[in-house]
Amino acid sequence: MSASVSPLAPREFAELPQLEGVRLATVAAGIRYKGRTDLLLIAFDPPATVAGVFTRSKCPSAPVDWCRAQLSRGRAAGLVVNSGNANAFTGAKGEAAAKASSEAAAEALGCQPEDIFLASTGVIGEPLDPEPFRRHLGPLAQEARGDRFREAAEAIMTTDTFPKLAHKEVTIGGRTVNVQGIAKGAGMIAPDMATMLAFVFTDAKISPMALQTALSEAVKTSFNAITVDSDTSTSDTLLAFATGTAGAEIVPGSADFQSFMEALTEVCRSLAFQVVKDGEGARKFLEVTVTGAETDVSAKTIALSIANSPLVKTAVAGEDANWGRVVMAVGKAGEPADRDRLAIWFGPHRVAFEGARDPDYSEEAASAYMKGSELAVKVDLGLGTGQATVWTCDLTKEYVAINGDYRS
Amino acid sequence: MSASVSPLAPREFAELPQLEGVRLATVAAGIRYKGRTDLLLIAFDPPATVAGVFTRSKCPSAPVDWCRAQLSRGRAAGLVVNSGNANAFTGAKGEAAAKASSEAAAEALGCQPEDIFLASTGVIGEPLDPEPFRRHLGPLAQEARGDRFREAAEAIMTTDTFPKLAHKEVTIGGRTVNVQGIAKGAGMIAPDMATMLAFVFTDAKISPMALQTALSEAVKTSFNAITVDSDTSTSDTLLAFATGTAGAEIVPGSADFQSFMEALTEVCRSLAFQVVKDGEGARKFLEVTVTGAETDVSAKTIALSIANSPLVKTAVAGEDANWGRVVMAVGKAGEPADRDRLAIWFGPHRVAFEGARDPDYSEEAASAYMKGSELAVKVDLGLGTGQATVWTCDLTKEYVAINGDYRS
Repeated sequence: MSASVSPLAPREFAELPQLEGVRLATVAAGIRYKGRTDLLLIAFDPPATVAGVFTRSKCPSAPVDWCRAQLSRGRAAGLVVNSGNANAFTGAKGEAAAKASSEAAAEALGCQPEDIFLASTGVIGEPLDPEPFRRHLGPLAQEARGDRFREAAEAIMTTDTFPKLAHKEVTIGGRTVNVQGIAKGAGMIAPDMATMLAFVFTDAKISPMALQTALSEAVKTSFNAITVDSDTSTSDTLLAFATGTAGAEIVPGSADFQSFMEALTEVCRSLAFQVVKDGEGARKFLEVTVTGAETDVSAKTIALSIANSPLVKTAVAGEDANWGRVVMAVGKAGEPADRDRLAIWFGPHRVAFEGARDPDYSEEAASAYMKGSELAVKVDLGLGTGQATVWTCDLTKEYVAINGDYRS
Repeated sequence: MSASVSPLAPREFAELPQLEGVRLATVAAGIRYKGRTDLLLIAFDPPATVAGVFTRSKCPSAPVDWCRAQLSRGRAAGLVVNSGNANAFTGAKGEAAAKASSEAAAEALGCQPEDIFLASTGVIGEPLDPEPFRRHLGPLAQEARGDRFREAAEAIMTTDTFPKLAHKEVTIGGRTVNVQGIAKGAGMIAPDMATMLAFVFTDAKISPMALQTALSEAVKTSFNAITVDSDTSTSDTLLAFATGTAGAEIVPGSADFQSFMEALTEVCRSLAFQVVKDGEGARKFLEVTVTGAETDVSAKTIALSIANSPLVKTAVAGEDANWGRVVMAVGKAGEPADRDRLAIWFGPHRVAFEGARDPDYSEEAASAYMKGSELAVKVDLGLGTGQATVWTCDLTKEYVAINGDYRS
């Protein structure tokens, strides 16, 4: 864990209201960390509908395998999350630990193990001892309360420097619906999918399939459009739970569904931005927009090539308006690009135009702009109408320090 | 330029012999750097046959465009290289500067501008003034001598901390043939192609097409198998020049051709390794081997995913045998992999086996191994016979410092 809070942390944390039927509890179970909470139980009574998006890693963690297997049932009575140990690459022992913790949670909550969803984050390859789960989940189920989203967000942190919370109210059919969530980063952050843990809760009434449709759409411009270090974790998990206590069912294709999906996207994007702003060692938040590409897919490939380039990211850390490196990153993406039609902006400053330095470019003005903490780079390719925006942070010495020293 | 020499620098530099008909000269032309040489002219009299491999960037530099246009003629009377300015993304002015410097060299050497090959390295996007070329190339042509390969290697350096030289003698048809070269790194080092400048010289007698065949084969396991930071430059250039003074013609398919290609590969690999060992901020050299993949191509994709992972590279910098990050990098590569068949070694230490930590794994022994400066990671996927090896370096705070501060 890092000693100091990211300078990009929000000034205030979102206040998450209680949702009927959702109770939370955390404990310092000593899974790996000392002196802090590391185990979270959330109970859904009655069971919530559930949807999920997971890592595309070919070597997913045991909890990811477990959640994928249960997801088709669309029903969740409990969520168990631990930090400190990812239960990834732990073989048969890992599967057994996942099964054991879901059984312990099921016993505590009086449901089937298949109604329990799991997530683990932390070190890879160390066996996860199921004993703390057996010992703590019963008491946690007893003491769980509705007003503990902040504590929940804190218990799932690893190298995060601040808890991540977001909330949005939306009026659907004349009734207030809450959409809210918690997340943790902070390394291995790259799209496909978001390389972190995030849990979204809503009191909307919505079927598992409709919730899945909305969630899959929401991740496209939130968790799947961020990158910290291009590394994809084995454990990425985004789960959405809907309790259904807020009014009439939301049906795909309706205006209500659209409103719900927008609120869900907004909450996912807020959480995703917080993950980037707490990227390991991050000092600057960078929005990368590519326009004028042949297709949206091509635009996103180029935007990610820029956002993942170590040379672009170190230039941002150094407050250097080094658009030459942006050209390099466009060039290496392998997508259609014509050097002589390229234009590049740092914020409002157009630095390059038609394949060369902008004649009106002021290095002074661009350099002054780079001193800000929230920056935007835009590239227009001049070829078509494809566009995409992704978000990332700078690459600093602190990133290297944090990651060169994680296990010791 | 970095103040201190890489700890991975060779103890001795290769001595490159004179080759009949090859003369070299360097000068401090003040293109960007002060107090060091930055302009190199090499004269081939009579003209040499030439082959080349260039960056796959979609936004190549003006010199790359120029060389590509001339390459089909297969004939070189001169090579002009400058450091300090890449003449990349400089639009029509850049093309004009390339043309002007080739004309100045042609005048100095008494040949056609199309017989001149060009390479530029340094800052992107700044117009390159052709005036120093016009002023210096005449005198350089006069004073050029055969014994200046070391000076040539020094003149083309940018953030390199040591000059890169390699030499190999091979007996072909009873006569000694020399294959030798110079190269520079040190940022934007990634395959496709080697993201640097390298020039190879031989007195072998070989046609341009045969030379191209040999060179294209040699890069596969040398320059196209190294990566420092996954960034691909706009200027990558590898040129091979053959003077033809050493005996009978080498014809593709012959045993002589095979011997020549092996020597060429060895020289390219030596230069490529030196480029990695002088990677910006590099403190450790890492060989990544993947075996048991479904295909060689799949093995290389996974090997590069490991070698380019910031989390793997920072773990190496921190001397941390963090094989969990290797699993992560295997997983994110998107290639066929089965967690439960995976085995991972750090040097001789098998740390993971059949999807879990090796029961005989000694963290102490693995940690002791990681203190070395030349390290090997091996991953066996247990799926097929595909394999690949790539080479990279660690990611250190010095990399960030060098690249956060390059233009200022």
